[in-house]
Amino acid sequence: MNTDEYFMQKALEEAQLAFEEDEIPVGAIITIDNRIIAKAHNLTERLNDVTAHAEMQAITMAAHYLGGKYLIGCTMYLTLEPCAMCAGALYWSQLSRLVYAAPDTHRGYSVMGGKLHPKTEVVTGILSQEATTLLKQFFQQKRK
Amino acid sequence: MNTDEYFMQKALEEAQLAFEEDEIPVGAIITIDNRIIAKAHNLTERLNDVTAHAEMQAITMAAHYLGGKYLIGCTMYLTLEPCAMCAGALYWSQLSRLVYAAPDTHRGYSVMGGKLHPKTEVVTGILSQEATTLLKQFFQQKRK
Repeated sequence: MNTDEYFMQKALEEAQLAFEEDEIPVGAIITIDNRIIAKAHNLTERLNDVTAHAEMQAITMAAHYLGGKYLIGCTMYLTLEPCAMCAGALYWSQLSRLVYAAPDTHRGYSVMGGKLHPKTEVVTGILSQEATTLLKQFFQQKRK
Repeated sequence: MNTDEYFMQKALEEAQLAFEEDEIPVGAIITIDNRIIAKAHNLTERLNDVTAHAEMQAITMAAHYLGGKYLIGCTMYLTLEPCAMCAGALYWSQLSRLVYAAPDTHRGYSVMGGKLHPKTEVVTGILSQEATTLLKQFFQQKRK
């Protein structure tokens, strides 16, 4: 397992926690120098707050840890492509690297017209199958 | 002074508070049935957090007040056009009406490619001059 897979596995564990709490299962990890400085999962239902996406919480946590609001030198591992809101937040954060697992063909920033910071390197497809399976399970269960 | 001007004046008072705290002066008010349920101003510097825009805080506050995460029936009064992050948050909130004062020709959602919810009615230009003057004063002071 390489470094990206290792940290994406941690993000998937966060997504699993969301699943168990009846939240849309999305997890996020932020690292700097291969150390985890933020872990979060979607909490929109529990917090009754559309802004409580995993990414938003992770950005706030990482900035708090770093004592500064820019995430230069940081990597975010994310189980699902960010939405336009989260892409906008990542834009402001100047995140250096974004690794996400599954594409979001309905509400992902790339279909909704959002933008990341021009300096953010993007890698996709790491453990994509696992992230997609978890999301499918969640929505199948919801329809029952 | 009509209703929109009255509430935009309240949003400008919030922007003035931000100005006094050395924050980019943007203020937001959310109303339902012409009652204020949220007041916020930009706190990105104080909270060391790129997500702490006035809009984001106001959305969280209003949802907390309402006990539900959707802002259907609500109006947001905002002194500056929202950025792509805040437009994305407003999209998820399904806000019914957005009234903003000044356009943001650099980082506003309309130039950055962001989207509001298709059901959100947008009104612009209310007390635009006042909002723009406050922003100009802030950046002139910063350059000194």
